[in-house]
Amino acid sequence: MPRPAAQPEEGRLASSPFLLALRMRKAARTPVWLMRQAGRYLPEYQELRRGRSMLDVIASAELSARLTLQPLDRFDLDAAVIFSDILPPLRGMGLDVRFDEGSGPSISNPISTTRDIDMLAVPPAEERLGSTLEAIRLVRAELQPRGIPVIGFAGAPFTLASYAIEGGGSKSYAKTKLLMYREPAAWERLMTRLVTVQADYLLAQVRAGASAVQVFDSWAGVALGRADYRRYVLPYNARLFAALSAGGVPAINFSTGTAGYIEDVAEAGGDAVGVDWRLPLDDYWRRIGFQRAVQGNLDPAALLAPWPELSSRADAVMDQAGGRPGHIFNLGHGILPETPPDSVKRLVEHVHERSSQ
Amino acid sequence: MPRPAAQPEEGRLASSPFLLALRMRKAARTPVWLMRQAGRYLPEYQELRRGRSMLDVIASAELSARLTLQPLDRFDLDAAVIFSDILPPLRGMGLDVRFDEGSGPSISNPISTTRDIDMLAVPPAEERLGSTLEAIRLVRAELQPRGIPVIGFAGAPFTLASYAIEGGGSKSYAKTKLLMYREPAAWERLMTRLVTVQADYLLAQVRAGASAVQVFDSWAGVALGRADYRRYVLPYNARLFAALSAGGVPAINFSTGTAGYIEDVAEAGGDAVGVDWRLPLDDYWRRIGFQRAVQGNLDPAALLAPWPELSSRADAVMDQAGGRPGHIFNLGHGILPETPPDSVKRLVEHVHERSSQ
Repeated sequence: MPRPAAQPEEGRLASSPFLLALRMRKAARTPVWLMRQAGRYLPEYQELRRGRSMLDVIASAELSARLTLQPLDRFDLDAAVIFSDILPPLRGMGLDVRFDEGSGPSISNPISTTRDIDMLAVPPAEERLGSTLEAIRLVRAELQPRGIPVIGFAGAPFTLASYAIEGGGSKSYAKTKLLMYREPAAWERLMTRLVTVQADYLLAQVRAGASAVQVFDSWAGVALGRADYRRYVLPYNARLFAALSAGGVPAINFSTGTAGYIEDVAEAGGDAVGVDWRLPLDDYWRRIGFQRAVQGNLDPAALLAPWPELSSRADAVMDQAGGRPGHIFNLGHGILPETPPDSVKRLVEHVHERSSQ
Repeated sequence: MPRPAAQPEEGRLASSPFLLALRMRKAARTPVWLMRQAGRYLPEYQELRRGRSMLDVIASAELSARLTLQPLDRFDLDAAVIFSDILPPLRGMGLDVRFDEGSGPSISNPISTTRDIDMLAVPPAEERLGSTLEAIRLVRAELQPRGIPVIGFAGAPFTLASYAIEGGGSKSYAKTKLLMYREPAAWERLMTRLVTVQADYLLAQVRAGASAVQVFDSWAGVALGRADYRRYVLPYNARLFAALSAGGVPAINFSTGTAGYIEDVAEAGGDAVGVDWRLPLDDYWRRIGFQRAVQGNLDPAALLAPWPELSSRADAVMDQAGGRPGHIFNLGHGILPETPPDSVKRLVEHVHERSSQ
């Protein structure tokens, strides 16, 4: 019997610095986790991934759980983030998503017509994404006694739509915009369907044991200007965050390239807003409003720098946060594969030491 | 005998709407040109490029001039922009730049050490970039009687440095940032050398007949946060624009991804600031200061939309400009290869008609 989504955490998890910060409560220390913390920069990750495709790993709850736990064995991180990718829900909808090592994900049957959109399935997450849900259960069983929460995640509707339409990554998002501009009714249907699928998936992750979720809108700000964001993205993100909020799920609203209009991004919802490194954290936080939690925002490349440079950059982020409750320390985007694991270790320790003084 | 850079234009060029707007003077109409207006979206461009590499074309003044003139034969554009690429100056400096059709430019001997930087040559533009300078002479001879100016251009130091260090395009700019962070003295030398080469190249383009120049800092804002921009980019861009200003050269300071800190970008200089589509034009212009010309900022994807959508987007840009002198209508980045030439024709006519009423 799964836990209802709305249940607040009890026991050791109730004093998790990460979950406290999400709710703007004072915590014993500034919590830290890092996007893509279970990733290629770890030799044990490369070892476990060797000879296994991304889809193989995601299809195995046990492998996903092991990868998720790897960075927690090395570093004193304040949260785990389930190992997966944002694209599997598109497979459940009927798109042939492939992960080709080196060249990024691709979809051999991208969406191009209204009919394609109407043909998209809306299966329940339990049916098509069961292995990730099971991985969450396994990780929770491992980490709950240690008081460490698991974060679930999913792509935001625009970011998923852009992959579904472009058939992979894009520089110009020309096909996506063309559909938006030419067929606004089709866009509405596609985005609505994605909201349904993603809300269901995120709520299922929480029922499986995730204590919070992050919504990745990685590409909306890269692709769109403010007016288009407000018209074609914000209403759908708002629906998604409303569904999460109604389910009592603490949620992080993450995006990149949105320095120009972070207020609009924040307007869509989320208990915390995750920001990139393009502006100092305090600029972002002031514009989001200090009554809301903020997550970020060290440049991932700072982890490649020598320690004096890295620590002074981490200090700058913490100084900008000003010791306010509600700051979750993270990078401004995913950790880079070139990152030395020892730098991650020192960074996590440094943030903890400096914030618990 | 080349014209000195400082000479102001006379004759028909003196009343060019583009040159008037650059100097904040009232013009008969809002001037329009489009980045990459001589490009793949034109069938005659594809015809002329067939079987010829980018380097072949750039090495031929006659071919470069013909490509430059193609869009002027079709559309009532207010300026020509010389056909070239931002990377040829790196070839003159000793880097093996290749343009592989499809996969983007690459450099087989990228910079990685201080020694590599010290080995970079600083040849005069006349010696290594003579064909582009000659192409400018040819285009000017053709267009001056029609009162249409030629725009020269070059990459900004950061954007060129990122190619030189990464060996091509990049998503993370990790190597570039690593050099900046680890070896600030080496970064200073590299950027200083690039400023020297680019200032010389831009002034040579003006002596050859360009009436104005645009500096493309395409990637600084994508890569860097504000603090890094101010420390590692702004001082060098400021030197470059100071050299142009001392030479009496009207200059456009173009960047993308800088919505978060366009004020800092504008601080580096330039008679006009070229902005992307991430924010409405009036937001940008207010922050840059209305005493300075602004260029932009239609989303290039708007040119793929049906006419009602395209024209209303163009109208929005013009409404935001508010009929002030000093607006140069352009896209927020280069024209997309999928663009229908007829849409360009209608757009140019529409901007002219609406602004001369």
